Amino acid sequence: MYALPIARLIEEFSKMPGIGKRTAERLAYYVLRLSREEVQSFSDALIAAKDQITFCPVCQNLTDQKPCEICSNKKRDHRIICVVENPKDVLAMEKTREYKGLYHVLHGAISPMDGIGPDDLKMKELLERINQGGVEEVIMATNPNIEGEATAMFVAKLLRPLGVRVTRIAHGIPVGGDLEYADEVTLTKALEGRHEI
Amino acid sequence: MYALPIARLIEEFSKMPGIGKRTAERLAYYVLRLSREEVQSFSDALIAAKDQITFCPVCQNLTDQKPCEICSNKKRDHRIICVVENPKDVLAMEKTREYKGLYHVLHGAISPMDGIGPDDLKMKELLERINQGGVEEVIMATNPNIEGEATAMFVAKLLRPLGVRVTRIAHGIPVGGDLEYADEVTLTKALEGRHEI
Repeated sequence: MYALPIARLIEEFSKMPGIGKRTAERLAYYVLRLSREEVQSFSDALIAAKDQITFCPVCQNLTDQKPCEICSNKKRDHRIICVVENPKDVLAMEKTREYKGLYHVLHGAISPMDGIGPDDLKMKELLERINQGGVEEVIMATNPNIEGEATAMFVAKLLRPLGVRVTRIAHGIPVGGDLEYADEVTLTKALEGRHEI
Repeated sequence: MYALPIARLIEEFSKMPGIGKRTAERLAYYVLRLSREEVQSFSDALIAAKDQITFCPVCQNLTDQKPCEICSNKKRDHRIICVVENPKDVLAMEKTREYKGLYHVLHGAISPMDGIGPDDLKMKELLERINQGGVEEVIMATNPNIEGEATAMFVAKLLRPLGVRVTRIAHGIPVGGDLEYADEVTLTKALEGRHEI
């Protein structure tokens, strides 16, 4: 039997997603090898993140400001909302430096298989934003998989009656990719999305 | 850019062994979804483990007692020491309920490739125990791989001149295993280790 404090730490690590018993043991073992200061710093980081980070009341992204930096930025185009599944997707979009509109983070995608319906996502909050007016276009940037597509379709159906333009990001061959290795679905989508040059 | 408290938490998770940037993000995200109480409990578990767990001054196993429960147990056979690589190996041995001697945890194995020599292990402490006398047999239960074998050989060479019997756990076909799927080395070892029935 592990000594109680170790057992408890292993249990805490085991609760985390994708962390099995073995990995949890390895992580607990790692913590015990750290210096007292390092463990304190880790412990403080947990509490600080929990205490200081909240959902932005507007876009639902994780933030330590209310509203978040993007939502409170007057230079951004408040007429366009890009809907994504996760906070990480906002980061990915921001890296393009092309998009100047706002975001809305759903915190997931509709997935009946996993029991995730519209009510489990920040869908109500999106609807409220649209109802407040001023939004002209909603870009659905959910992931290009079954769940992401279903979510995009659902939102489109919901918002179109409200007079908002709902668009979907393009599918196609990734830049730098090779046609030879592209799967049929992607290739079909790339063909469908062809445009004049 | 992530808000600072998230970035810091992701960095703390990234430092852990086998945890890449992606997994660290996932774990940080998980923490943010926990309740304040759950995060506090996690944070406390880290500190408690670090503050209460030390190496047993005798066997070097992780413990919250000094000496550990096994070393201070008068009913155990203090003439036999089973040498293992990690605290987890002690747990594995204890599960057999067969072994009644003491342990010595090296906290690793000799591995020149990884720059781990005898001085990086709790080898000096093992030698001290033997020099204090009273030990008749040292069972080398390091892992059956190159590093574990090298460590077993090294310890054997070191201890034999001191008049201690040094033994190695047997290699062979695992119970419930299938001969058909056993690798040649294991099968050879199993043959070498054959005994009359």
